[in-house]
Amino acid sequence: MDWLDSVKWDRDGLVPVIAQEQGSQDVLMFAFMNREALAQTAASGRAVYWSRSRRRLWVKGETSGHVQQVHEIRLDCDNDVVLLKVSQLGHEPADPSIACHTGRHSCFFQKLEGGQWHSVEPVLKDPERIYK
Amino acid sequence: MDWLDSVKWDRDGLVPVIAQEQGSQDVLMFAFMNREALAQTAASGRAVYWSRSRRRLWVKGETSGHVQQVHEIRLDCDNDVVLLKVSQLGHEPADPSIACHTGRHSCFFQKLEGGQWHSVEPVLKDPERIYK
Repeated sequence: MDWLDSVKWDRDGLVPVIAQEQGSQDVLMFAFMNREALAQTAASGRAVYWSRSRRRLWVKGETSGHVQQVHEIRLDCDNDVVLLKVSQLGHEPADPSIACHTGRHSCFFQKLEGGQWHSVEPVLKDPERIYK
Repeated sequence: MDWLDSVKWDRDGLVPVIAQEQGSQDVLMFAFMNREALAQTAASGRAVYWSRSRRRLWVKGETSGHVQQVHEIRLDCDNDVVLLKVSQLGHEPADPSIACHTGRHSCFFQKLEGGQWHSVEPVLKDPERIYK
């Protein structure tokens, strides 16, 4: 059986994907893949997602240069969630990596404190300079 | 504005949630919350999810004893994914924690290698002994 057939695709033919940074172990982002995206990710070693808003394959970093090198692909106990271990590339070598389209390290930069969401991670690069 | 109103709930009134273990930084599991589950999680400091199969609130560990103490609640850049930093409780003190209903540490125990999924994490406790 094809390993792609083991994945339980949802009603839209997608599977949720968590990208975790190798090394720091930070959870960088969350996105979706369809079958073709997961196949391309495994074949190329670069993360390819399915953009639900643009309705097309989205090679992470195709515009920003912030590509993800994939070291490991994991599947959960219910076969319906994927976890990637990645190296987030394309940033200044001395800086933390940038996975978020806001120019931050991680997409999970809002922290609940005192009944409010607070941005607790700095913008490392102005998005206007990322998406030229 | 209520912090719960900032969350973009999906068409089913749910938000995907990633649980990451404080300390090890391992991604333990993935589940969903509705508004009530997230409110209870924040109020109680214990992870409460929405079980889509049972269609009811699910206090993680209510049967197994493997409750999750919540240290941090994060929200992503699109306000539609939650990340929890948790301590996974209820296991033998000398052993790794158990988050998965299969008796494993993490739900993400299947690794893609050579075009096949391989279970690469041991069962720490027989599920029949977990769910008595």
